[in-house]
Formats: sequence, structure tokens, C-alpha cells
Amino acid sequence: MRDMRRRKFWGWGVEGGGPDEAVTRPLIKRACETFGIAAPEAILAPQIGEIALPANRIREGADSLGRCGATDDPLERAGHTYGKGLRDLLRAFDRDFAAAPDLVCYPASEEEVVQVLDTCDRHGYAVVPYGGGSSVVGGVEPRGLRERYPGVVSLDLSRLGKLLDLDRESRLARFQAGALGPGLEAQLRGEGLTLRHFPQSFEFSSLGGWIATRSGGHFATVFTHIDDFTHSIRAVTPAGIIETRSLPSSGAGPEPKRLLFGSEGSLGVITEASMRVLRRPVFRASATVAFQDFRQAVEAARDLAQSDLHPSNCRLLDPGEAMLNSVRSDGSAVLLVAFESADHPLGPWLDRALEIALGRGGSVAGDTRVSEGESDRAGSGGAGRPEEAGQWRRMFLDAPYIRDHLVRAGFIPDTFETACTWSGFEKFHAGVKEAVTDALDRVCGGGMLTCRFTHVYPDGPAPYYTVIAPGRPGARLAQWDAIKEAASEAIDRLGGATTHHHAVGRDHQPWYLNECPPLVADALRAAKKRLDPRGILNPGVLFDRLN
Amino acid sequence: MRDMRRRKFWGWGVEGGGPDEAVTRPLIKRACETFGIAAPEAILAPQIGEIALPANRIREGADSLGRCGATDDPLERAGHTYGKGLRDLLRAFDRDFAAAPDLVCYPASEEEVVQVLDTCDRHGYAVVPYGGGSSVVGGVEPRGLRERYPGVVSLDLSRLGKLLDLDRESRLARFQAGALGPGLEAQLRGEGLTLRHFPQSFEFSSLGGWIATRSGGHFATVFTHIDDFTHSIRAVTPAGIIETRSLPSSGAGPEPKRLLFGSEGSLGVITEASMRVLRRPVFRASATVAFQDFRQAVEAARDLAQSDLHPSNCRLLDPGEAMLNSVRSDGSAVLLVAFESADHPLGPWLDRALEIALGRGGSVAGDTRVSEGESDRAGSGGAGRPEEAGQWRRMFLDAPYIRDHLVRAGFIPDTFETACTWSGFEKFHAGVKEAVTDALDRVCGGGMLTCRFTHVYPDGPAPYYTVIAPGRPGARLAQWDAIKEAASEAIDRLGGATTHHHAVGRDHQPWYLNECPPLVADALRAAKKRLDPRGILNPGVLFDRLN
Repeated sequence: MRDMRRRKFWGWGVEGGGPDEAVTRPLIKRACETFGIAAPEAILAPQIGEIALPANRIREGADSLGRCGATDDPLERAGHTYGKGLRDLLRAFDRDFAAAPDLVCYPASEEEVVQVLDTCDRHGYAVVPYGGGSSVVGGVEPRGLRERYPGVVSLDLSRLGKLLDLDRESRLARFQAGALGPGLEAQLRGEGLTLRHFPQSFEFSSLGGWIATRSGGHFATVFTHIDDFTHSIRAVTPAGIIETRSLPSSGAGPEPKRLLFGSEGSLGVITEASMRVLRRPVFRASATVAFQDFRQAVEAARDLAQSDLHPSNCRLLDPGEAMLNSVRSDGSAVLLVAFESADHPLGPWLDRALEIALGRGGSVAGDTRVSEGESDRAGSGGAGRPEEAGQWRRMFLDAPYIRDHLVRAGFIPDTFETACTWSGFEKFHAGVKEAVTDALDRVCGGGMLTCRFTHVYPDGPAPYYTVIAPGRPGARLAQWDAIKEAASEAIDRLGGATTHHHAVGRDHQPWYLNECPPLVADALRAAKKRLDPRGILNPGVLFDRLN
Repeated sequence: MRDMRRRKFWGWGVEGGGPDEAVTRPLIKRACETFGIAAPEAILAPQIGEIALPANRIREGADSLGRCGATDDPLERAGHTYGKGLRDLLRAFDRDFAAAPDLVCYPASEEEVVQVLDTCDRHGYAVVPYGGGSSVVGGVEPRGLRERYPGVVSLDLSRLGKLLDLDRESRLARFQAGALGPGLEAQLRGEGLTLRHFPQSFEFSSLGGWIATRSGGHFATVFTHIDDFTHSIRAVTPAGIIETRSLPSSGAGPEPKRLLFGSEGSLGVITEASMRVLRRPVFRASATVAFQDFRQAVEAARDLAQSDLHPSNCRLLDPGEAMLNSVRSDGSAVLLVAFESADHPLGPWLDRALEIALGRGGSVAGDTRVSEGESDRAGSGGAGRPEEAGQWRRMFLDAPYIRDHLVRAGFIPDTFETACTWSGFEKFHAGVKEAVTDALDRVCGGGMLTCRFTHVYPDGPAPYYTVIAPGRPGARLAQWDAIKEAASEAIDRLGGATTHHHAVGRDHQPWYLNECPPLVADALRAAKKRLDPRGILNPGVLFDRLN
């Protein structure tokens, strides 16, 4: 069972994890200076004893659920009330856990998952599938469910994390879907294999969660989402089990597994997935290129995305983002380009990539590295990685911890992300910046907005925005909601994606219902009715409107 | 309007097209020698005057359909009765056109498509969407519909073939979905762009058909199916129009366009698609590698598929296939490897690919070529293409014409294709060979079975099998059905894909319903009920069982 005594029930990661005060204090100091405010008193982290949880209402079926690892331990219920977004933190700091599930179930087998769904279906209890709990979009939060269902169960898959089968020749690894990132990688390492799916939530997000939310990972080009690494899938629905055939490819009808990719727990509970794994990379080549002109940096990123060189990393940081992450602070935009391979040296790849970037007015910043030899722990600097890139990776994985510190210090730090076409980017970016800057001015008296590209495609980039603003005590939830509303409204109006890899959950539903063609949403509702006739699975996410 | 006077109504392509008798006669002679039979008298091609078509029953709504380009011209109705598979040819040679549609409609705009669906929905007429008509799986054939529907309309999209919009910066080209391969490429050529989707049916298959059947194209690795080149899509359903947002990527819910990919006309009529196009390749590098041992050749193909070198071609021919296509006749298996790029020279890519192939016991056969300069007409030998590869491409595009000659000469020539994992391939291949060879012996007293890989993935190959056997006059349909049944049964039993890129249609339905998880098929039926409440769209394909 997940050790909730070590996991924070109110925020990111484990107690005592992340960078220490020597790191966070200067950051907070800098943020205060930026906004010209005094260093505030940090909010005390909530203690479980302070939390008033609503009563556990589940009596009928309690025995059956009990045999599937059900608990109403307050720490467990509180720990499964929220995901890990800013809204979650702020409500936790408000000691508001009114939406807590009645029970948390930790099934130890797929049979127990079946039994939980059967029991809940019989009694009309809502079931919220829960992997690592890292949703930042209200995906695992039983919001509004207590009012509508006589029972609410958070279904935590964390006891189901085993590697079940390894096919070395086909490079396939079949896992139970509850495996968290580090546990999954640990089971592959001894075989010289890796999935290399490193979302920022890597440490506390699960394989099933990645698939259910179409998570975006390590690779900036070609196969970016977990979708394309998922060979086959197995899921439990109230109507029965779905298992797709083990095939490298099939042209037979609409692809069955794609119905579950991105279904966010609303159509079934993913219990197993066979994943396309990789040999651990040995060859690396990378470089950092600085641009005085952001527009030229965007053109370089586009050229690279359209070059068929397929860099594993092609991350563009705007000047603010470069500064925020201590990569560079002279006002340049920075393009991090990296290649990796288990098969061949990458000199020619990097040479051509640099030729492209320099041809767009970039200049090499720091070392370029071409190397051979294993080193790919997420978070390590690693051989063949320029200093700027190493700094970037450390910040990347520490960011959720640092975010918690900034929230406790009274700031409003959050992110939102999208995708658009290359031809549309300039207008799109200007429109998003204008809308969010206006909102920041209006509700916070100012703030910082930075942008990076996390992934690039031949037809467009995936821009990722970071917001930091000073908050007003007691008003931050409303402040953030106004900023987020402005951002989502602008993205929608300007034709961007509701989300590139953060998922829809409950927070993005109105915008998703604009993006998704209405007849497709209807078709998905009809599909859900067939798989989940009583509507118990994660009600209120995606296309499933709560009445 | 399609010029049916020039298109054969009973077989592949245009009257007088394809290789002439100087080419086909020796092939037929060789086939006769192979099977030790005398050269038979060629069956006379059917003439439209010989064909007894059933009456056109459509009266109600005929005016409305007439305004959308409806015709009951016998040549049109006969020409829309079948696809282009062996079963189609054999029935055409039997002068059996009993399943002909009542009308063929040639809408000239999307509004007219809407009007056709509205009219047919109102009167309960079945609608069979028709692109290029190249289905080899009974996908465009109104089989069993006349008995069940008071009217049957073949909806031919060939008047809708225009390029609507070009976004050079994002490399997107929006086309009407009726564009056939050559017309589509012609509209891109002047812009220096290309889709490079070259299925064997390229000359007479349409963009909408490719998407509706998840067609497999030119590229042997990475993005093999048309799916991954389709940026966004627009379709007409009886319930209304579906249009997906123009986005390079989105993580918002199950991907809407994927519901229509592979839907084979059963969920909607695809009217437009925005395609990810490419700059025309300038750099090429290719080589031919021969292997004494087929097993080693398979290992080399697997290593290449797992190398991340991403060759555009990685086609493995078994010894029989190499001989059949006049590529090599010394009993070796042949691996054709090619790279192409609009961006960079490919020497290092080919060097490493050869290193891999030679490391598995291959030997370079013929020239290896590395070149620069434009030349990519489908079917042309082209600079930088070894003689073996040029020979291969000519045979590839002529094959459907040659097939018709072989059918007229009394043979049973056809193909079937699948996909499986690398670890499963040896047993799978042996099982398929055994089942099909047994069937050939049983029903034809022998025959030839060859295999090639058309596409390779990190987790497995897509094997493509060719059958040639001597037929018994009047019995060939039953003979082929027995062979095909043995092949499909073996593929299904051994866990292969029902189809990799030929689609499901009506012919593969029983096997597809084994491959598709039953609850997914149910969910798709529920989705169809929402989009096509009266069940008029291409009844009887995929998950839509005729009662």
C-alpha cells in the first residue's frame, strides 16, 4: 500500500523531499524583489489533525470493498481528495477537504478491481481511478460527487505496479498499470531497457495515469505522447474487460486502444499495458543555442521539427523562461537540442541541427557535447549534456517542490500549455500573452508570464506557459481562476489545443467541449453508456457533464 | 465526373493501361511452366452490353438525388458494383452484377453530400461511400444491401478533388477527400511539396478512402499509415457535420479524428482532410542486401526497425518474392533499404544501416547509391535507386494490371497481409505457410506462396503474402474462398492482425470481430447509432453486422 505517512497529503511528493531551504529561500527572495514586495510569512502546511473530513457514508458493500483494500483512514481520504495543481494546494491550505472520498480502495489484483467496480455499480457509488495522483486539472478530484452519489470511492492502483512479462526480441514490457515512473524504470534497468517517459510528474505519476491522460514525455519530436509507446492495453469496465490484441500495428477499423487513450478514467480502469521499451541510450549529442531574436529562435525550432532529424529534445525557452530556470539571463532565447541513441554515434545529426540553428541567427552558447557511455537517470546532469541542459533538468524535476514553497510563501505560480500551428503561432502567442498579462494586471497588479516549447511537430509547436504573480491572502483561488479563465478563453478563441499533455479533467471541461466536435462528444457519451451504464466512472470529466 | 468509359468497369485501371502483352505473355508462360499446365485461352473481358443489371428501384427522392449528380447509367452502376479484389474480378467475369447499386451519385460539393445523406436517410436508402473504388476486401460493394434496403446509392466522391488551402509554414495542405493519388500529388508538385503516400492502389485510390481504411503508404517505418499524416478532418454524417480542430497535437480526450480513421464509411463520409505534407526529397541513399538465410534477413530487418535510423524503405523479400518480382533469382532473400530527405545528405544513415545488415550475414547486392537531386515520380526508377529497387517499383505499380491478366488466363493470384510481433514471427510465419500450403494443395493441387515485409516496427513486421495457383474453370471463387479462409483462420489463431493496411470491409468481418475487443465493437455500434441512427452508411462493414 502507498505509504501516505511519507507522501504529503496536501502537496507534491514526500515529506522532506525536494531542494532544501538553501535553494528555495533565494528563489523566494528573488520573486519578492521582482514584484517589489516584502518576504511574507510562509503558510504552515496543514496537519491531518486539523482537517474536518465529511463522514464516510458507505455501509452497503463495505465488506466487499474491505476485501479489496478499502480504508477510511483520514490521511488516506485527505490524500485522495485533490490532485497536485495550484487550486489543489490552495484548497488544502484552506483546510477544505469537504469533497473527500468516502473510502480509498487499494486493490491487490485485477480481480479486486473487478470486484470494486461490481460493488460500486451495484450500489451506485462513484469511482475515481487514481494512479499517482499528480493531476493538475481536477482529474482525480471527486468534485461535486458527494452531492450526487451515495458513495464515492477513490480507486488507487498503486499496489499493482509489477512487470508481468518481458519480450526482449520485440522490446515489449507488460506492466500492471499502477507502476509509478521510478518503479517502472527500476524493473527495466537490469535488462538494459527503459521506457524513457519522463513527464515532470515522473516520480509520482503512474503508467495507467499516463495512458489515461495521453501524457507527454521525454521526446520532443516523433513519438511524444505515451500513446505511441503503448503496444496493447487491458482495462476493466463495469460492463466487462477490454483487452486489445498484441500487435505492432493493425489497420482493422478505428484503433480499439485509442478509445481508452485519454479517456481519463471515464470509460474504464486501465489495469495493464504492454509498452514499447527502448535500449538504454549510449550515444548522446547536444548543444545549446542562444538567439537575440525570439522570432528567429521559433523559426529554428520549426526548421528542426521539419528536418526529419528527430532530435529527442528540442526545447525552446523564451528569455523569461531561460532566466527563471537559471539557464541564461542576458535576455536571449535558448534552444536546447539533444540527440540520443542506443545504436549509433550522433555527430552528423548534431552537426546538421547546429547548421540549421545557426542559419537562423543563433549562436552556440556553452559547450556542445558528443559522447558515448551510459548515464540517463532522470534528473542527473549526465555525460554529454551541456551545463545549461543539466541545469534545466535539475530545475525541471524540482519544479513541483519549488512551486509548493512559492505557494506557501503567498505567490501564485502555475502553468498552462497548448499547441497550435507554426503559421498561427505568432498571433496566437501575442493573443495569449495579452489576455494573461491583462488578467495578471487586473487581478494581481502584475506578474510574470514566460513561455517554452516542450514539444515540436512538423505542423506546429506545443507552447507551455509559466505564470508567477504575487497573491492576496485569502483571494488567491479566485485570482488564479480569473487568470486561468483568461488563458483558456484566449487559447480557445485563437484555436489552440485545450491541452497538449496536462489533460482535461474537470478544470478544462468547458474548453474541451468547444474543441471536441459535438457529435464526437455525443458518440463518446454513447460509448460510455455502453461500457459504464450507470455512469459511475469518474463522473464529471471530459465529455461527461454533471447535471 | 469520373470517365467510366475509360475506366474498366470490371477490373483494374483504364482500358489499355498497364504493361502490354510483351510483358505479360512471358509472365503467364512462366506461371504455366511453374505449374506444369498448358497456356489456357484467356477469358474475354466482359462488355457492358452483356450485363443484366437489376432494375433501378429509386423513385422517391430521385429528383433530389438527381440534383446531386445521380445517374443510373449501366456502365456507372456496373462500375460501382465491385472493388478490385480477386473475388470482384471473378464475379465480373461471371457477368454477375446482381448486387449493383440503384444509383451512383457524383456530388459536386459538400452541400450535395449532405443532401444525398439527408435524402437517403429520409427514405431509408443505403449509402456506400466510394473513393477510388480500389477496395480488395469488399469495402465498396453493396453486398446483401438490395435485399435489405429499398434503395442503394453508391456515393462517388471523385468530383471533390481540389486543394482547398495550403499553409506553407506549417506544411499543411487541405484537400477535398475525393482527390485520387496522382491528382493530389499534381496539385502539390508546383509548390515543391508532396504527401508521398504511395499505396499500390495509388493511381486509383482517394485521400478519403486512404483515411477511411487507414491505408499504409510509402514509408516503411515511423509514420506508416495515413493516420499520422492527417492533421484534421471533416466528415458528413446523417446526424450532422464533424470537423476536428486544426492542431498539430492535442492531449484532450480520446482523439476525435481517430474515431473516423478506419471507419470505412460506416460512421460518416469524409469530405475534407488537412494533410501534413513534406518537401520533395532531394537526398537519397539506398542499398540492396542479399541473405542466404531468411532468418538472418529477418533479424537484420528487426535490427533496422529498432535502430531509430528510420529508413523510408526497409522492404524484405523472401526468396520466392525476390524471384517473382525479377529482383533476384538465386534463392537469396533481399532487403531493400532506402533513406530520403529534403534536408540533409544521408551517407551516415546508410553506412550504419549497411553495417547492421552486413553484421547479420548479408552481402551487398548491386550498387549502393547516395545521391542528390529531385526525382520521385512514383514508378520511375529515379536517381540514387539501385537497379533492383527500380525493378521492384515498376513491378509494384504494374502488379494490379498483371494480376488482371493472370486472372483472365485462369490463375488464382491474390495477396493477404498482416502484422505480428518479432518474437512471434517465426512460429506465425510457419503456421500461416502451413495452413495456406495445405489449402493450396487441397483445392488447387499446389500453388506458390511468397512473403515480403512491407512495413517494419520496433515491435514487429507487417508480412505481406502473395499467392499464385492454377484455377479450375468455374470453381475459382470457391477455391480462393477456401484459401483465404485458411489464411485468415491461421492469422487469427496465431494472433496476427486481421489486416495491416488492406482494411476490413465485408470480407474480413468475422476475423475483425475476433480481433476487436467485443466491448469496443459494442461501443462503436453505440457511436454509430448516434451518428447514423437509421444505419444507412455502408451497412455490413466492420462491426456493423447485417442481420
